[in-house]
Amino acid sequence: MPKGGNVVTDTAGYDCDVLISADFVLASAPPEAGVSGHHVIEDAALAVSAGRVGTVGRRGELANLRAKRRLELGRSLVLPGLVNAHTHIAMTFLRGWADDLPLAEWLTQHIFVKERQLTAEIVELGALIGCAELIRTGCTAFADMYLFEDAVAAAADRAGLRCLLGEAIFAFATPASVSAEQAMDRVRGLAERFTGHSRLRVAVMPHSVYTTDDAILRSCLRLADELGLPLHLHVAETAREAEDCRRAHGKGPVAYCRDLGLLRPTTTLIHCVVPDEEELDMIAASGAHVAHNPRSNMKLASGVAPVPAMLRRGILPGLGTDGAASNNALNMFAEMNACALLHKGHSRDPTLCPAATVLDMATTGSAAALCWPELGRIFPGGPADLVALDLRSPNLLPLYSPFSHLAYAASGFEVRLSMADGRILYEDGAFTTLDIPQLCDEAEKLKQWVLKTV
Amino acid sequence: MPKGGNVVTDTAGYDCDVLISADFVLASAPPEAGVSGHHVIEDAALAVSAGRVGTVGRRGELANLRAKRRLELGRSLVLPGLVNAHTHIAMTFLRGWADDLPLAEWLTQHIFVKERQLTAEIVELGALIGCAELIRTGCTAFADMYLFEDAVAAAADRAGLRCLLGEAIFAFATPASVSAEQAMDRVRGLAERFTGHSRLRVAVMPHSVYTTDDAILRSCLRLADELGLPLHLHVAETAREAEDCRRAHGKGPVAYCRDLGLLRPTTTLIHCVVPDEEELDMIAASGAHVAHNPRSNMKLASGVAPVPAMLRRGILPGLGTDGAASNNALNMFAEMNACALLHKGHSRDPTLCPAATVLDMATTGSAAALCWPELGRIFPGGPADLVALDLRSPNLLPLYSPFSHLAYAASGFEVRLSMADGRILYEDGAFTTLDIPQLCDEAEKLKQWVLKTV
Repeated sequence: MPKGGNVVTDTAGYDCDVLISADFVLASAPPEAGVSGHHVIEDAALAVSAGRVGTVGRRGELANLRAKRRLELGRSLVLPGLVNAHTHIAMTFLRGWADDLPLAEWLTQHIFVKERQLTAEIVELGALIGCAELIRTGCTAFADMYLFEDAVAAAADRAGLRCLLGEAIFAFATPASVSAEQAMDRVRGLAERFTGHSRLRVAVMPHSVYTTDDAILRSCLRLADELGLPLHLHVAETAREAEDCRRAHGKGPVAYCRDLGLLRPTTTLIHCVVPDEEELDMIAASGAHVAHNPRSNMKLASGVAPVPAMLRRGILPGLGTDGAASNNALNMFAEMNACALLHKGHSRDPTLCPAATVLDMATTGSAAALCWPELGRIFPGGPADLVALDLRSPNLLPLYSPFSHLAYAASGFEVRLSMADGRILYEDGAFTTLDIPQLCDEAEKLKQWVLKTV
Repeated sequence: MPKGGNVVTDTAGYDCDVLISADFVLASAPPEAGVSGHHVIEDAALAVSAGRVGTVGRRGELANLRAKRRLELGRSLVLPGLVNAHTHIAMTFLRGWADDLPLAEWLTQHIFVKERQLTAEIVELGALIGCAELIRTGCTAFADMYLFEDAVAAAADRAGLRCLLGEAIFAFATPASVSAEQAMDRVRGLAERFTGHSRLRVAVMPHSVYTTDDAILRSCLRLADELGLPLHLHVAETAREAEDCRRAHGKGPVAYCRDLGLLRPTTTLIHCVVPDEEELDMIAASGAHVAHNPRSNMKLASGVAPVPAMLRRGILPGLGTDGAASNNALNMFAEMNACALLHKGHSRDPTLCPAATVLDMATTGSAAALCWPELGRIFPGGPADLVALDLRSPNLLPLYSPFSHLAYAASGFEVRLSMADGRILYEDGAFTTLDIPQLCDEAEKLKQWVLKTV
């Protein structure tokens, strides 16, 4: 038997629930080995039982396993489900509503106006559409920051995805909470509700330095400590934010976070487009994570995050899509592609952000940003979160390197199988947890709500 | 009847070959109106007969047409087939073969080594794979520069695509031609063979300033004049090229082309990453076209072409993918997306390259670069080159603006119908002109050829 085999035959005589075979599987060491990369197994197979990956090996070695279902994928590449390190999944309701505008006008006249009237119902519907897109494009887990996060939880649960839920905490009233305190109560409520849930976890997510204050950020830190939760916040997204922070506090936003005690291995800094060199050193020294959102940063013209400088310091950023108002896709393949291309072009160095590194960012890097290190990797005993790409798609012909195709050639729509927690969510055109025709109809309702909201 | 109707009932009593109905059609004025943009017709239909678009109007207005086939696409967006202004379509054989390398090493140790041993057979097979990808992702016409262009012609013809064929002309011997003269003879042969062909046209394509010389470029110009052909060449792709040109000729590569008489309305300058302000003025004054290849420029770290500065001068560049060795996709949706995002991020201005402009680049802009102005637009009497996007794809929900979705949200794999010259090339998963399982097998042969070629 191959190494790492942990076949447990059940009472009905089956060795596993599903035996998946494919020409290529990208496997990894377990997270405790401290390796972020993946390796290719050719002519491969893996067993899935009770939401977990069992044996991973060569097709022939696993051929005799008795499986409830045998899934022979042939010319396919099985890889870990991608992990979206940052989104506002419900914001699909504003996808394409307002593009190509100056940032202040976009935010104040188009986005905030709608968000001020948000309801849990709109959030849940927007989130369901976003979840469908994640499933379709090979993402099986995401970190979410928004209002009415209980509605996001409902959507993610129905979709079958994993989610790190973060009710956004602001210094001011929102449609979901009259105050930061009330938003923190919502976090507490979520944490109570989802303790022990296999797919839903909770984080403390103060929106940013500039939309909260010292007292709120300290409260958030205490709440995270008390409940043992990760903490995510937007930091250093724009030059304007960094300047304002220097004016108000005499230091940049990362330094400000460090001085508040926020930089630590359970914190994720979202964006980090404009940290200075010293601030990059602070992040590296602290073990804090970064969520890089290249497409959103480009579309909003925020600038180019210093990812090569992060990598040189040993920081492996996670990758995120941000929300659909500023992207407008929630597609981790598009994000990998943008990351691989952007930094080469910007720094005029074609060796930066090579394919395998970009895949690491979208898998183990993002998983680390979610403080959920067993995600983003396929290993015996690990979670059965995986996707399969159809290598017969003409844009993937011929195949020299799976890493190259994942970073440069694939669109995400070659995904033919998406599985999370051992459950198939999408297979060859069919969604198993979501009703797409119904979502199409409901998207129309979402649009009518946006159009009539002033 | 709607305006522009030109229904001609045939002897069998049919008003048209195909009547296509869809929730949205993007239509345009005919090219002689001098408008590059598109407008949305909701609840629309269009008739196709003998390779041409007939009436375009509202569903109800065309409901009574007697059609051989009625194609009700429902929640779909019909748009003109995208036009790829620059590629080396056969280079799929090197897709993902060598990425993330310094430019000189990549070219000399990986690309040139293989190309030195090229055969027409490899070119044809590589081109077929490339054509399959174009069809799948909504592109119906492309400008191609490579060796053994007769093999590209065979592939494009079999695929049913339109192609502007350009045998690459170098100062040195290639596997296809011992000299520039022989390469020009090949151009002459292609032109003779394809005069009057509805889908295949020929251009004169000297590779670049730095791989030819004054005499060759002058000969190319004479050949283009003699045969009435467009001329395409790579110009100002890298800072290194521009510096070398200034050292050798005392002027930049665009100025050098201008002084040779190359800048004119039937010339397309490929890349134009590093023209200076004066050179941009020369291009604008001359009416010459530009083919912008944002993904290739990023991957090879060539820099960022000054597209906003071109647009300000009234130059609407075409969009191209370049070859699969430097992209690695041949997907015009990915190219539109990269273009829309890149220039915003690079110039820190979110209003640059708005969605509708980027669509114009990939349609009418590219068509102008091919000197084939009736392409890239749907109008009564125009060529029936069109594609339909499935708007039920979750990443396209909801829909406020077709332009926004085309530039920012679509991947190209939502394409459910591709038609060129009135012939359906792809429909709901099925290719009509290409055998994909066979291409998968043959791609393996391509790979074996590359692996054994030293």
